[in-house]
Parts: sequence; structure tokens; C-alpha cells
Amino acid sequence: MIWLAVYDIQDDGERAKAAAILQAWGFVRVQRSFFVGRLPRGRAQDLLHVLSRHVKTGHVALIPVPDDSLDKALELGAPPYAPLKPPRYVQTLVV
Amino acid sequence: MIWLAVYDIQDDGERAKAAAILQAWGFVRVQRSFFVGRLPRGRAQDLLHVLSRHVKTGHVALIPVPDDSLDKALELGAPPYAPLKPPRYVQTLVV
Repeated sequence: MIWLAVYDIQDDGERAKAAAILQAWGFVRVQRSFFVGRLPRGRAQDLLHVLSRHVKTGHVALIPVPDDSLDKALELGAPPYAPLKPPRYVQTLVV
Repeated sequence: MIWLAVYDIQDDGERAKAAAILQAWGFVRVQRSFFVGRLPRGRAQDLLHVLSRHVKTGHVALIPVPDDSLDKALELGAPPYAPLKPPRYVQTLVV
């Protein structure tokens, strides 16, 4: 399942910590406050629990979306970090 | 169709204009750079076109999600503006 993570955190330290945690959990940064990652639902709840230990101010939302949501997304300009759309999320199995 | 609008815009004037346009198109502000709205796909393309006339820097993404994506979302803290989850999006018809 693909998750969109978007946060609005006032505290600089907490914001940096949230970004680090999300990326440590395999989320890719697309914008400063917007990340995309792939996790089973249960693991997303674990992630939120980890974030809750460090983020005391502001708001974090983890939103599950179907794979094709990103394919159908409309964009203006280029993201400051990684591209929004796959193929970054295609897992290639070499046998 | 529900759309998530998330932007990362450096220019203060453009950012304020983007927020104003999104809200004029019925999007609800959840976080400073994150809005949620309901539009048919064709209208979302029109919206992006209008935004492109004003936003020359940064990145805007409009991501279509199924209605239950918001219901299944996980949240930490309270959003600084409007709540993320419906019922705000339930249209009640009085006959």
C-alpha cells in the first residue's frame, strides 16, 4: 500500500526529526513537507507511534492511496526533491 | 473524486495566490501547504491551468484519491486549519 505523508510542524527540531524518521522508514521526500512511501497498514501505525515520540507540535497525516493515484496525479513544476510518480516504486525481482 | 493538493512554493506571493485559488475552487485548507477538495477530473486540469498562470516557482501536485483514503488516514496531532476527515464532504440534499 502506498502512503502519502504530509506534515505541518512548527518546531524546527521536530520537523527535522520527522523527516529523518520518514526517510529511515523508506519514505521518499518529494517536497519539504510531503513524502511518499510503501508500507503495510500495520507498519504505518507503528511509524506513527515512532513519530509520536518525537513530534509534539503540529500535525502529521499518513494517507493510504491506491497505486494508480500517483499515476493519475497532475503536477505543476518540478518537485524540489524526488519525483512524485513511479517507476521509483516498481520492485524488480531478478531470478 | 477527492483531490489532495500539496505544494512547495518558495515565492511568498505565489504561495498566497495558490492558497487563494485552491480555496476559491472549494478546496479546504488542512495544513499550510496541504488542501483537500472534490472535483471531477476535467475540472482538476482546469484548476491546474489556472494555477500555472500564477505559480512559476516550486511544485504543485493534485492527487486523486478514493473517498475511503481519508477515512483510513492516520493522524498525529491536530491540523492547524480544517479537519482532514469528512463528514465535511458529505453533501446533504434537502427535499
